[in-house]
Amino acid sequence: MSADKVFHSRSQGIPSEGVKDQYADGKAARVWKKYIGDSNQRTQNYKNFLTGLLKKHNCVKVLDAACGTGIDSMMLVDEGFKVVSVDASDKMLKHALKARWEKRKDHKYDEWIIEEASWETLPEDIQSFLPGATFDAVICLGNSFAHLLDEFEDQRTQKMCLRNFAKVLKPGGLLFIDHRNYDAMINSGATPGHSIYYNCSYPVDIKTSVLVVRGKPELVALDYLIHTNEDAELNEQSMFRLCYYPHELDKFTSMLDEAFDNKAEHSIYADFKALDQVENPAYYIHVMRKPLN
Amino acid sequence: MSADKVFHSRSQGIPSEGVKDQYADGKAARVWKKYIGDSNQRTQNYKNFLTGLLKKHNCVKVLDAACGTGIDSMMLVDEGFKVVSVDASDKMLKHALKARWEKRKDHKYDEWIIEEASWETLPEDIQSFLPGATFDAVICLGNSFAHLLDEFEDQRTQKMCLRNFAKVLKPGGLLFIDHRNYDAMINSGATPGHSIYYNCSYPVDIKTSVLVVRGKPELVALDYLIHTNEDAELNEQSMFRLCYYPHELDKFTSMLDEAFDNKAEHSIYADFKALDQVENPAYYIHVMRKPLN
Amino acid sequence: MSADKVFHSRSQGIPSEGVKDQYADGKAARVWKKYIGDSNQRTQNYKNFLTGLLKKHNCVKVLDAACGTGIDSMMLVDEGFKVVSVDASDKMLKHALKARWEKRKDHKYDEWIIEEASWETLPEDIQSFLPGATFDAVICLGNSFAHLLDEFEDQRTQKMCLRNFAKVLKPGGLLFIDHRNYDAMINSGATPGHSIYYNCSYPVDIKTSVLVVRGKPELVALDYLIHTNEDAELNEQSMFRLCYYPHELDKFTSMLDEAFDNKAEHSIYADFKALDQVENPAYYIHVMRKPLN
Amino acid sequence: MSADKVFHSRSQGIPSEGVKDQYADGKAARVWKKYIGDSNQRTQNYKNFLTGLLKKHNCVKVLDAACGTGIDSMMLVDEGFKVVSVDASDKMLKHALKARWEKRKDHKYDEWIIEEASWETLPEDIQSFLPGATFDAVICLGNSFAHLLDEFEDQRTQKMCLRNFAKVLKPGGLLFIDHRNYDAMINSGATPGHSIYYNCSYPVDIKTSVLVVRGKPELVALDYLIHTNEDAELNEQSMFRLCYYPHELDKFTSMLDEAFDNKAEHSIYADFKALDQVENPAYYIHVMRKPLN
Repeated sequence: MSADKVFHSRSQGIPSEGVKDQYADGKAARVWKKYIGDSNQRTQNYKNFLTGLLKKHNCVKVLDAACGTGIDSMMLVDEGFKVVSVDASDKMLKHALKARWEKRKDHKYDEWIIEEASWETLPEDIQSFLPGATFDAVICLGNSFAHLLDEFEDQRTQKMCLRNFAKVLKPGGLLFIDHRNYDAMINSGATPGHSIYYNCSYPVDIKTSVLVVRGKPELVALDYLIHTNEDAELNEQSMFRLCYYPHELDKFTSMLDEAFDNKAEHSIYADFKALDQVENPAYYIHVMRKPLN
Repeated sequence: MSADKVFHSRSQGIPSEGVKDQYADGKAARVWKKYIGDSNQRTQNYKNFLTGLLKKHNCVKVLDAACGTGIDSMMLVDEGFKVVSVDASDKMLKHALKARWEKRKDHKYDEWIIEEASWETLPEDIQSFLPGATFDAVICLGNSFAHLLDEFEDQRTQKMCLRNFAKVLKPGGLLFIDHRNYDAMINSGATPGHSIYYNCSYPVDIKTSVLVVRGKPELVALDYLIHTNEDAELNEQSMFRLCYYPHELDKFTSMLDEAFDNKAEHSIYADFKALDQVENPAYYIHVMRKPLN
Repeated sequence: MSADKVFHSRSQGIPSEGVKDQYADGKAARVWKKYIGDSNQRTQNYKNFLTGLLKKHNCVKVLDAACGTGIDSMMLVDEGFKVVSVDASDKMLKHALKARWEKRKDHKYDEWIIEEASWETLPEDIQSFLPGATFDAVICLGNSFAHLLDEFEDQRTQKMCLRNFAKVLKPGGLLFIDHRNYDAMINSGATPGHSIYYNCSYPVDIKTSVLVVRGKPELVALDYLIHTNEDAELNEQSMFRLCYYPHELDKFTSMLDEAFDNKAEHSIYADFKALDQVENPAYYIHVMRKPLN
Repeated sequence: MSADKVFHSRSQGIPSEGVKDQYADGKAARVWKKYIGDSNQRTQNYKNFLTGLLKKHNCVKVLDAACGTGIDSMMLVDEGFKVVSVDASDKMLKHALKARWEKRKDHKYDEWIIEEASWETLPEDIQSFLPGATFDAVICLGNSFAHLLDEFEDQRTQKMCLRNFAKVLKPGGLLFIDHRNYDAMINSGATPGHSIYYNCSYPVDIKTSVLVVRGKPELVALDYLIHTNEDAELNEQSMFRLCYYPHELDKFTSMLDEAFDNKAEHSIYADFKALDQVENPAYYIHVMRKPLN
């Protein structure tokens, strides 16, 4: 066989620009939308968890640093938060921009800001369209951060991006950031088909590939096969690959602490519950509270 | 980072034709020649093991099914065996063809046959240049077989090729086939830099990457960094990647038995010694004796 | 030299999907925006020509079949036309969607429809978001149609798309479609740097390559080098390649007539003027009037 | 259509290393061998022309700088010349090496030297395997030199290689170098299917594409479709692409003169005849005589 086939890291038509454009193929974006479900189908668990903590800490201005099609941001706008949404993928942003237009008569949506931005230049990007802005909370959820891979095998880019999240927070502000339970995926070689975030009504088969370099997991490739039987047009496009860096819980925890100079309050949740309440969680959610000074 | 970089499965300039041409880049072939050492430097252990068993079983006609630059074949020609050497890589065959020419005045070399052939069509390929030929022994050594990857994730091509090796053997004939100790490499994430076959005088650093698909190791990529300091010209070309299927001992043993319909005598050696004499071998060598009827 | 370099038909990062995504690279889209100038800088000649003819023929509903960043569409919305804008490039659509949002308080913009659509499936695509819609005019300007290349060397796709433009027109409706003066470009090997459409304030160098297959010009590649000196960030991204099919005036004229079954009224303009008034025009603009029955 | 298809400059499986390896794909090399015919089928015209001039000038040591499968070199060895044959393609060299082995009992062939070498480093490459060697004649025929493309659009590599040919000649030595009549190909858009060199018994269709950059022909791509009906196995592989730089007669003539510091005697032939005897030649053959001091 051709080794290149084994290693082909993207779906056809997706350009080779790493995380910036894993969704650049329009059909992949449409299938992905099918996968994550309708925008009003976010799980209640997720909504209660996120909005509960935001309100408890009096957060008003929220940066959705990985807004995708806008599903999380709209949930927050509906709840009255002032939301700035950014993403690096134009294919994703197009859906968010169209969703906002549909709501143009809804006053809550009038101040929703949607812009293209990269985590690597986040403070500068925000400065360019919203000078001086800082936030009560930054969210980077739905396993988004793991899209950022590890080119130099020392996680330097990931560390820089986490510091950028910290920078745009006000003192006392909250960072919500999550990752799949990669420890379990590495050990089992399998990925759970369902999500704590999405209400996907289609059966999903996920083929899990782990690349281990010098004994260290460096990449997970997930080949999604989504059976969208009732939708003949999408059928042939229902397989695509996404690649992730497999964050292990203890290493990610340390890296996140360092991004806040080990001074932030750090809480870890398992599938939106206390860590000891879930035996084999699908996701870990970290909440960092930036120190007040 | 770009996922494509992580997954790039070949050195620059090596075409994407799978096992057939991993050595198609001329400079890679030259560096590889440096790595494996001079042709008169095959280890004595290896030579004693191979020629000892061949002579013990009265083998005369030997097929070297992965002759590369011809180093093993020449050792056998020198010892008086009648050798047919095949390889799928023209870059490798060029070296064998030139080595044969240098020996054109040596009568032993006059009948050495060198041809291009693929394992997948081995009986037909041999028929095309040597009609009716069968062999007392087939050798496929130096971790060559592991170059054959697993496109369909069911090892069908590997099984077919092993059956082809069995087909071209005479009744009672011997197949010598080996693989690295991939069990140890998978567990440790590391590859020993030295070889039981080669007398490489250069320090070698090997970066080991293992791709695990659905929990099953499907590919090992070895990035060789060879320090050829005294040879400035080669210096910049001293890094290249080779990809292998990581055969595990028990699975390869079963697959090999099946290729002979479970009727062959099957001996396994560790670094050319009895299995229980080597604690953590670098290579496993299988010797199959095709049944007489 | 590597022949691949000569033939590399796109800027880095632009995916290989033909016309659909020549602008998929975000930076190319930004540079392109620099090139074409601000949206309020469309030339007066162009505006007078287009809106004059539309009004003269009482056109109200206009389909902009290649809206790009929305610059033409906005000119028409401002003039009171009811505009539906489509494009196949998400990168381009993003700019149009954001521009529309900026105008959300302007009633004229409230009914501006922006959707993704392909010329090859134009009637079906329109049917999916605007059932039953037909148009008083279709515009496909700014050398857009020439982005469609000629895969089968018989122009079958171009012919199909022209028929699709005809299909979505009402009886008596107008099609505006243009192309550069490729006859002059083929003969001279050069491309004029300035445009009749854009007010580009940057100096532009265009390297023109023509691919002639079996004696027939089949492709023009334009390498744009835009000197955006005052904008250091864009400087390194200011070179990119776009590919076009080089429509010759007489062949395009015939093909267009055939798309309307040779029954449409066909007027040809040179740089928005009568043909005989311009000696060596940069563009030819065709206006087709679909027969009333 | 995808622009990449139009521009794809090689047959599948041929690596992107420019002239060095246009024949790296084994099947292309086999089809090519079919195309050029058996080695004993060189045209008599060609043989008479070449050996006649070599003998007239008392040439003994000949360098075949583009030996390919060895067909020209064997003709010269048979005629008693001392031949050194080089090529940059291993796929081609393999055929030459095997042909030499078949002739190992023929004393004339005992001194035939076959090595890998590149025109760009020709003096150094020759020095490495034949220190101090210079030649009475260098031949570079069969349209070989046109394989060298023009990466920098100033023909610098071509000029360097021509100087290298001059360097390895003895004073008074002859350089034979040819090129197709690209002037006619550029004007007509067509390539003659038959060759003055080969006796190809198959019907051949050649699709000619010319790339004109800034008004200057920079590349010709020939798509060969060879109908090898009686050979079913080769049938599917009988289409492949080769790329050439389209040397125009007057420009090549000047460039060649400059490579010899305008001091060489320069004769030009058309299809092995005097220039004025052939109306529309397929090839031009240049013979340079290096000055004696």
